Amino acid sequence: MSASASSSSPSPVLPDRQVQTADSVLSGKEDEHGGVIVEMSTEPIDPIMFNSLLKASMIHWKQQGKRGIWIKLPIELVNLVEPAVKEGFYYHHAEPKHLMLVHWIPETINTLPANASHRVGVGAFVMNENGEVLVVQEKSGKFQGTGIWKFPTGVVDEGEDICDAAVREVKEETGINTKFVEILAFRQSHKSFFNKSDLFFMCMLQPISFDIQKQEREIEAAQWMAFEEYAAQAFVQKHDLLRYIVKICAAKRDGKYTGFSPVPTITTVLKKQSNLYFNTKDLNS
Amino acid sequence: MSASASSSSPSPVLPDRQVQTADSVLSGKEDEHGGVIVEMSTEPIDPIMFNSLLKASMIHWKQQGKRGIWIKLPIELVNLVEPAVKEGFYYHHAEPKHLMLVHWIPETINTLPANASHRVGVGAFVMNENGEVLVVQEKSGKFQGTGIWKFPTGVVDEGEDICDAAVREVKEETGINTKFVEILAFRQSHKSFFNKSDLFFMCMLQPISFDIQKQEREIEAAQWMAFEEYAAQAFVQKHDLLRYIVKICAAKRDGKYTGFSPVPTITTVLKKQSNLYFNTKDLNS
Repeated sequence: MSASASSSSPSPVLPDRQVQTADSVLSGKEDEHGGVIVEMSTEPIDPIMFNSLLKASMIHWKQQGKRGIWIKLPIELVNLVEPAVKEGFYYHHAEPKHLMLVHWIPETINTLPANASHRVGVGAFVMNENGEVLVVQEKSGKFQGTGIWKFPTGVVDEGEDICDAAVREVKEETGINTKFVEILAFRQSHKSFFNKSDLFFMCMLQPISFDIQKQEREIEAAQWMAFEEYAAQAFVQKHDLLRYIVKICAAKRDGKYTGFSPVPTITTVLKKQSNLYFNTKDLNS
Repeated sequence: MSASASSSSPSPVLPDRQVQTADSVLSGKEDEHGGVIVEMSTEPIDPIMFNSLLKASMIHWKQQGKRGIWIKLPIELVNLVEPAVKEGFYYHHAEPKHLMLVHWIPETINTLPANASHRVGVGAFVMNENGEVLVVQEKSGKFQGTGIWKFPTGVVDEGEDICDAAVREVKEETGINTKFVEILAFRQSHKSFFNKSDLFFMCMLQPISFDIQKQEREIEAAQWMAFEEYAAQAFVQKHDLLRYIVKICAAKRDGKYTGFSPVPTITTVLKKQSNLYFNTKDLNS
């Protein structure tokens, strides 16, 4: 929905209207926590007029006892960022084409929800019937030119499931088709990427095809390698995390390890599907 | 590090210097992917001068074959957001006090890393020796006034481990001290909070204390409740996810379920500790 000026008693969702009077306020939608969300359309507004509207709105919302005020500014309205910040708003989060600013009105402790804090990455353990694992060498990043062979890894895209991301990354990097089996382990680390946190999921995938076609842009080389040869690399031996991963993969290969498998669940109200990952073997036995 | 104007051949890390000449450029640090990161200090810069510097810098970086150009603008320099956007930068991410803008120079496909995409939440299954679980009723949010009893839940703070967040949330909401045992399951959902994704970790904690002192601000009531009574609530019965959670918790109570336990691992170079969560029981047996 787009925001526009309205009369001084805004309803939760308002259609676009022209500016009426000097004491108009911005229209917004009420959230579940006593706050207001204002989504600005991309139509230009003079910053001075926006400033007046914003001041009038803040007075109005304070009188109404509103708590968190959110303003979503598309990048086309970048000239309104400064007026908003000068009125006491701070940054909440940003996406390529918009900036979300927020202002906490009450004097009580700020309980506004935090922004997304984690990037989510996946690694793929793909073993064929000969006990060989799928490994790659990368053209850029910290492994570039080191000669180190690693499992295919990547970052999940926006809105993408972990299990789908793992299958996609293997397909993109090596051309191998796979079926997701389970999550073997995951690691949480902090202060990694621009001070954000990181969740890395080590996934086991079953190969469905076997002819490698490496991705030209990012992959220097890709091959099926004897698992023991992968594990024996000095790089793997020196890294705590990788030594554990190797042990877990070996146990899985030997049929002695159970991880978390995805089970689709449906939310009651919105009928959205989401995957619940857990030890299905234990629950079913 | 703070950025300032420098001579037209910037070195990766430069100290602050005064503006020298008309063809000065912004100084930045090189990243691992052929890009440059410019961290502006909070010292005010005239936007027109910044605009000239930025234009000169972009020409210089293009000549050097740089790829991603990052500019970190503290909120004190909000007046520089518009010049940066007009020069072709877009938003990458924002925190309360700074905005990170980025510009991809090459004409090849943009491989800049994405922003953090997931919020991480925790829920706590805490059972005492009488087979009672710790449950709460909340004062705000979607459960407010519904009479529904739920497990304590919350969102991990920036830089906080999942296991620590679960223990903290239980302590804050109910006053009960606990010890983290394991992750029973986790769910990934999309388009939940401002279009971001969500990872929710159902954790099992062992109580160390038993006298409840509920948090006044957010908790309406807290108690130990017979597990069967919690499970029999219509709300729990109607929700796919909660029905699974109940089965998993029951299996865990009966000693028939193993989840993922945290094992600390150390990174070789930076000696940072991070937790690897996996089925330690299977690996140790």
